[in-house]
Amino acid sequence: MAEHPAASASLADLKIPPIDPAAIEAATRRQTTLTKPPLSLGVLEELSIRLAGMTGRLDPPLNDAVVFTLAGDHGVAAEGVSAYPQAVTGEMVLNFLGGGAAVNVLARELAARVVVADLGVLVELPTDPALRSLKVRPGTDNIAQGPAMGRVEAVTAIEAGRRLVREQLEGGLDVVLTGDMGIANTTPSACLVCHFTGLDPVQVVGRGTGVDDAGLARKVDVVRRSLEVNREAATDPVGALAALGGFEIAGLVGVILEAASQRRPVLLDGFISTAAALVAVALEPGCRDYLIAGHRSQELGHAAALAGIGLRPLLDLDLRLGEGTGALLALPIVRAAVRVLNEMATFEEAGVSNREG
Amino acid sequence: MAEHPAASASLADLKIPPIDPAAIEAATRRQTTLTKPPLSLGVLEELSIRLAGMTGRLDPPLNDAVVFTLAGDHGVAAEGVSAYPQAVTGEMVLNFLGGGAAVNVLARELAARVVVADLGVLVELPTDPALRSLKVRPGTDNIAQGPAMGRVEAVTAIEAGRRLVREQLEGGLDVVLTGDMGIANTTPSACLVCHFTGLDPVQVVGRGTGVDDAGLARKVDVVRRSLEVNREAATDPVGALAALGGFEIAGLVGVILEAASQRRPVLLDGFISTAAALVAVALEPGCRDYLIAGHRSQELGHAAALAGIGLRPLLDLDLRLGEGTGALLALPIVRAAVRVLNEMATFEEAGVSNREG
Repeated sequence: MAEHPAASASLADLKIPPIDPAAIEAATRRQTTLTKPPLSLGVLEELSIRLAGMTGRLDPPLNDAVVFTLAGDHGVAAEGVSAYPQAVTGEMVLNFLGGGAAVNVLARELAARVVVADLGVLVELPTDPALRSLKVRPGTDNIAQGPAMGRVEAVTAIEAGRRLVREQLEGGLDVVLTGDMGIANTTPSACLVCHFTGLDPVQVVGRGTGVDDAGLARKVDVVRRSLEVNREAATDPVGALAALGGFEIAGLVGVILEAASQRRPVLLDGFISTAAALVAVALEPGCRDYLIAGHRSQELGHAAALAGIGLRPLLDLDLRLGEGTGALLALPIVRAAVRVLNEMATFEEAGVSNREG
Repeated sequence: MAEHPAASASLADLKIPPIDPAAIEAATRRQTTLTKPPLSLGVLEELSIRLAGMTGRLDPPLNDAVVFTLAGDHGVAAEGVSAYPQAVTGEMVLNFLGGGAAVNVLARELAARVVVADLGVLVELPTDPALRSLKVRPGTDNIAQGPAMGRVEAVTAIEAGRRLVREQLEGGLDVVLTGDMGIANTTPSACLVCHFTGLDPVQVVGRGTGVDDAGLARKVDVVRRSLEVNREAATDPVGALAALGGFEIAGLVGVILEAASQRRPVLLDGFISTAAALVAVALEPGCRDYLIAGHRSQELGHAAALAGIGLRPLLDLDLRLGEGTGALLALPIVRAAVRVLNEMATFEEAGVSNREG
């Protein structure tokens, strides 16, 4: 990336530590001693072992869970790719601040904090202690006509996401959950998924918040044109993000990278978060080991995007809301996995007979 | 059932109230007003509406969650259908009482109570205030050679399950979770699933706690023989339960029926609980409306058994442990569904623009 000094310089300090093989081995061994048939807790066992690898301990704390709900607007909304008016992005940010959105309700239920950040909302938002204002610019440019943003802006947004994570470390940050808000943002996300997986738009583009058949056809066409128009700009991961992404998506790339660098597990939300994860993995393949897929969303290309990273989603509940809701709903499973590994009795402790033969 | 006075008389007091159409309508209407695209919370929306129907209110309490973990032994263990020795049933009951089993750990994590009951464990268990001793008999007879138990015993076990639920009402009982412990009990459960769904044993029989290929073939054969040997006894639901079931399975039938009669939602665990649910639905079709499938287990026939009742599982995590673990892991989703319905802001309250057109 010598030709892009701004980009490379800015992420140069990022180091993602490898996962801990000794902790993985210890967790794997302990699972076999617990009073249950081998592998009978399925995904929970694998999860507890992965979490040990990420954190270097069998009993990583998971109380301080923080959802990073990043918001941004998208010039491509002008193409009529969303069922909702663009004003909803800013209105929903206010709803987050008022505690009335789904992400707020679920965070209360699951004892998580929500960090709401403006990475690029079109309207000016009021000053509010609960809102982190890190606006790169009020909305991206229309990707159907050219790049969403410049490379420096993309890196600025990544750095903003990284900063958000670092800011939360002091108050306690055990597990990072991703979330998003941005009318039309399934369109840039579909572009990024197509770009990084090589899939065709018809295999990836879904209905987002609920466009009809005509809207879906228009969206496929917009994604195809956006990929063509931006072909030359998207030659490296930062270039692809700048050309096809969005400010909140770039911010989430930063959230993911910084979380991994701090050895914090990352619970991904849905389609938009997974698009960001594809960018993060392309930039720093090591961050993959810190990713957990919260759920499979209804958005068409989400399963393929997750498969592209090699992740199996914990939940499959036909969600398609974003905000961090799917990541939050998966949090109890993550917490349960760790607790089971640590608190279950062994065959020896409980005096239970093990398998015959 | 005129020819079986004991059976019919004993369940004669059972009345399952219909679900509440007004509550369903009110919940459905409210879902459309909340600040999210229609149906974007997928399964959670449907769940909140069903729970309103069951309980007659949009905000049913769900704090007092009780897992009924019922234990029993099985004569069919003599056929070599389990990877574990029969002693494990009693040993695991002691593990439950000591708080070291997976169900205990998950119940602590999710703020649920565990009720452990001996419906028919082979060994004599110590007196313990935490153990409900409702032993019908120490283990069933070998179903490969004849009926597991008599009809009166089956009804006695059903009544014991009903009593367990009634006993918990006073201490608070908002939602009922089913659980089981019984070495070899996937074999009688497979028999019941085959009987009530008409599927062939090769489509239903799975590896249980982990038998090898030879064990699996043996198990298929045992299930086939058990169905043949008991064909004449299994002419009505109680007959089928008595011939092919187990004491803990019959107890779970009672738990399900009594919970439904008290308008309490029932979160089903895995294969054994679903076999019990098939019996309960055959006895009282109205109880179906109170059932929620916690998860799809790894046991081969579980998905078909759930489909037979018309249920879609909330989780699919490759679990195959039983005890109530799969029901417990789904509990946060049920609680979240209700909370979202009640606490989310409406478009009007939050000043958020709704869909265009």
